[in-house]
Amino acid sequence: MTTFYQAVRVRKELSMNIKAQVIEIAQKARAAAAGLARCSAEQKNRALAEMAQELLQQKDMLKKENARDLAAARLTGLAAAMIDRLTLKDSTIEAMAAGLEEVAALPDPVGKVTSMWRRPNGLLVGRMRIPLGVIGIIYESRPNVTADAAALCLKSGNAVILRGGSEAIHSNRAIADILQGVLRKQALPEAAIQLIPITDRKAVSEMLKLEEYIDVIIPRGGEELIRAVVQQSKIPVIKHYKGVCHIFVDTGADFGMAENICLNAKTQRPGVCNALETLLVHQDAATQFLPGAAAKLQAAGVALRGCEKARALAPGMEPATEDDWYREYLELVLAVRVVRDMDEAIAHIEKYGSLHTEAIITRDYHNAQRFLNEVNSSTVLVNASTRFSDGFELGLGAEIGISTTKLHAFGPMGLEELTTSKFIIYGDGQVRT
Amino acid sequence: MTTFYQAVRVRKELSMNIKAQVIEIAQKARAAAAGLARCSAEQKNRALAEMAQELLQQKDMLKKENARDLAAARLTGLAAAMIDRLTLKDSTIEAMAAGLEEVAALPDPVGKVTSMWRRPNGLLVGRMRIPLGVIGIIYESRPNVTADAAALCLKSGNAVILRGGSEAIHSNRAIADILQGVLRKQALPEAAIQLIPITDRKAVSEMLKLEEYIDVIIPRGGEELIRAVVQQSKIPVIKHYKGVCHIFVDTGADFGMAENICLNAKTQRPGVCNALETLLVHQDAATQFLPGAAAKLQAAGVALRGCEKARALAPGMEPATEDDWYREYLELVLAVRVVRDMDEAIAHIEKYGSLHTEAIITRDYHNAQRFLNEVNSSTVLVNASTRFSDGFELGLGAEIGISTTKLHAFGPMGLEELTTSKFIIYGDGQVRT
Repeated sequence: MTTFYQAVRVRKELSMNIKAQVIEIAQKARAAAAGLARCSAEQKNRALAEMAQELLQQKDMLKKENARDLAAARLTGLAAAMIDRLTLKDSTIEAMAAGLEEVAALPDPVGKVTSMWRRPNGLLVGRMRIPLGVIGIIYESRPNVTADAAALCLKSGNAVILRGGSEAIHSNRAIADILQGVLRKQALPEAAIQLIPITDRKAVSEMLKLEEYIDVIIPRGGEELIRAVVQQSKIPVIKHYKGVCHIFVDTGADFGMAENICLNAKTQRPGVCNALETLLVHQDAATQFLPGAAAKLQAAGVALRGCEKARALAPGMEPATEDDWYREYLELVLAVRVVRDMDEAIAHIEKYGSLHTEAIITRDYHNAQRFLNEVNSSTVLVNASTRFSDGFELGLGAEIGISTTKLHAFGPMGLEELTTSKFIIYGDGQVRT
Repeated sequence: MTTFYQAVRVRKELSMNIKAQVIEIAQKARAAAAGLARCSAEQKNRALAEMAQELLQQKDMLKKENARDLAAARLTGLAAAMIDRLTLKDSTIEAMAAGLEEVAALPDPVGKVTSMWRRPNGLLVGRMRIPLGVIGIIYESRPNVTADAAALCLKSGNAVILRGGSEAIHSNRAIADILQGVLRKQALPEAAIQLIPITDRKAVSEMLKLEEYIDVIIPRGGEELIRAVVQQSKIPVIKHYKGVCHIFVDTGADFGMAENICLNAKTQRPGVCNALETLLVHQDAATQFLPGAAAKLQAAGVALRGCEKARALAPGMEPATEDDWYREYLELVLAVRVVRDMDEAIAHIEKYGSLHTEAIITRDYHNAQRFLNEVNSSTVLVNASTRFSDGFELGLGAEIGISTTKLHAFGPMGLEELTTSKFIIYGDGQVRT
C-alpha cells in the first residue's frame, strides 16, 4: 500500500507543479505585455528580421530537434499525413523565415487612430488601437505555427503563450528558444513569447482557467480540439468549429463560370475550411447546369450526394441524407441540392450552414445585392470561389485564424483583429455640467 | 413523508417548466433575429416612434402597474433610494419616450460598409456591419432600462431578451407589452423584444446556458450582479466590474484647472462608475496644489484618505491603507497619493486601476502624449473630467453599457458596438490558383 500512496503523492505533486509552472508563465506574459505595448514598430520589426535570420542560421539544430519528434512519432505509429505536417525540411524552415519577414513588412496596427471627432464642448475624441494583452494559442502538429503565431502576436504588441501538440514538443521548443533568444538580445521583454514546455494535458486545463492573466484564447486545429478548449475555458475563445461552405448557382448564371468556380472551390484544396461542401442549384438552372457540372466534378474525382431532383438530372449520385447537409467533408465529396428559388437557398444556408463562407453565382444585379445583404455568414461572395475566404487573399496581409462567432471578430482575422480600441480625449479644462 | 415528496416533485416540475419557458423564449428570439436583421432603418424608426407614442398614451396603465411593484417594495422594506429608482412618474415616462425618439434619430449602423478595397486579382472586398443576433440584458430596479435597452437592440437589428429585477416585474412587463404590441401591429418580428416574466433566479441561470441561441450577455447593475452573471455564463459577457478612475496632476499643471476638474470628477455625481476615486499628484506639484485642492474638496463634503506625504501637506486626511487604492468608493471619499513622477503614476494606475478611465492634468506636451499613448485604460483624457467617459458625452449618440474587457468593445458602447462585420466580396469569376 505504501507504493500506492507514494504514487498518489507523486502525482499530486506533479500536478501542483504543472499548475504553478503555468501560472508563472502567465504572470510573466502579463508583465511582458505592458512593456511590449510600448515598443515601437521599428523595434518589433528589427526583432522579427533577426528571428528570421536566426531560424535560417540554426537550420541544422532545428532539424536535429525535429528528428527527435519524428522518431517518437514513428514509434507511436502516427499517420503518414501527420508525420508529413510535423516534418521540418529546409524549405519549411525557409518558409517560416520568409513568413517572419512578411509580418515585419506589414503596417503596425498599434497606435493607429482610426477616427477622431470634435464634440460641441471642444473635446477632441478619438479611438486608438492598442494590443489585446496576452494571447494564448493552442494548436496541433505543424511546428511552423509556433513561428507564425508568435510573429503576429509580437507585431500586434501582444504577449503570446504557445501550447503546441506534444508530438512536436522538441521542434516547438527549439523554435521558441530561438525567438526568445532574439528578444533577450534586443532587450525586448523576453516573456513576450513563451512556450508551455509541458506535454501533460493538465497544462492546457490550467492555462484555460487563468482569465486574470490571459485575454483571449485562439485554438488552431480540428473541431475536436476546439470543442475541448471551449468546454474548459474561462477565457474568451475566438474560434470556428467548421466550414460548411455553400455555393448557390442562380438561374441565368454564366454556367461556364459557375462550373469553374465550383470545381475550384471543391477540388483546389479539399481539406481546408473554406472548401465547398454543399452546392445549391436553382431549379430553373438545374437541367442546363447540373448534368455538365456533375460530370466535370466527377471527372475530377468528386463523389456527389444529391437530393432526388439532382439525382434525376445527373447520373452516379448517391442519395444525400439529412445528415449530409450538415457535413464538412474535408475531402472530395460534395452534397448537391436543387432549390426552388433564392429564398429556399438562403433558408437552407441559415439552417445547415456554419456562418463561414457562402457564394452566389449570378448575372442578376438584384439577386447579387440581396445575397450579399441577407446572408450573414462571415464571408459572402458574388461570382468568386469560396477559397478566397482567407486573410491573405482578402488583403489582411496575414491570418491568425478564422472566427465564425460574431463577437470581436467575424471571418478571417489579421493583425487588426489582435487589437482593440481605447478612447483618447484631448481637452482644455472641460468639466461636465 | 408524502407531502415532502410531493413538494419535491412540484419543485422539480416548476424548475423544468422554467427551463422550458426560457428555452422557448430564446428560440423565438433567434428566429426573430434573422427577420429583424433584414428590416430597413425606416421600418425600425417607425416602430420606435410609435413605441414612444404608446408609452405616453398608456401612462396611466404604466403607473398602475408600477404601483403594484412599489407596494410590494414597501412591504419588503426596500431602501428609499431603491424605491426612488423604481418609481415611474409622468416625467420618467416622458423621458423614456423621448429616449426612444432619440434612438430613432440616430444613424442605423446595420448595412454600413466601413471600408472597401480592390485586390490585385480584381476582387472588390468590403466589410459590412451586421447585427450580433440575440442580446441578453440582465439588469436591476430601474424600469426605464427595459425601454432604453430594447430600443438600442432594435435599432441595431438585434433581438433582445430582457431580464429585469423581480422588484420591477410588473412595470417591466407593462413596458415590454407595449413595445411588443407595436412590433405586432407593424408586422415586425414580435419576438424581437421579449421579457422573461419569471422572477425565480433559476430563469437567469437557464438563460446563461443558452449559448446556441444568445450571442452576448450585457449585465447592467452592481459589481455583485455582474460577478454572478460572469460566474454562471456559458455565453460571452460584456462587462465592467468597477471604475477606479484616476486623475494625475502633473508638475506645472494649471492648478486652477486641475482643482476644477478634480472637483467635477469627484462631486458632480459620485455614485457613478466614471467618478474620480484616486487623485495622484506629482511631488513637485504637491506643495503648491494639494493644500488648496484638499480644502476645496473637503469644503464640498469629500472625505480624503491620503498617503503620508499627502497628509503632511493637507490637514484632515485619514491615512489611506493599501486597500484604499483598489476601492471604488461611489461616494464622497477620495484617496490621494503623492507620486515621484509620471512613471510612478502610470505604475500605480496599472497596479490598482480597473482599466476604466484615467486623466492627466498637464501643460507639458510630451507628458500629455505619453499618458495618452501608454495608459491603456478604455478612456484616457488630457485636461478634462473623467465624467466624460460616457457614450453620450463622447458622441456615440447612446450608451448600452461600458466594457473594461478588451474583447469586442472597450469603453462606452454605442450602437456600433452592438454590431459585427462580415466580409462582402464582388467578383467576376475569380478562382484561386
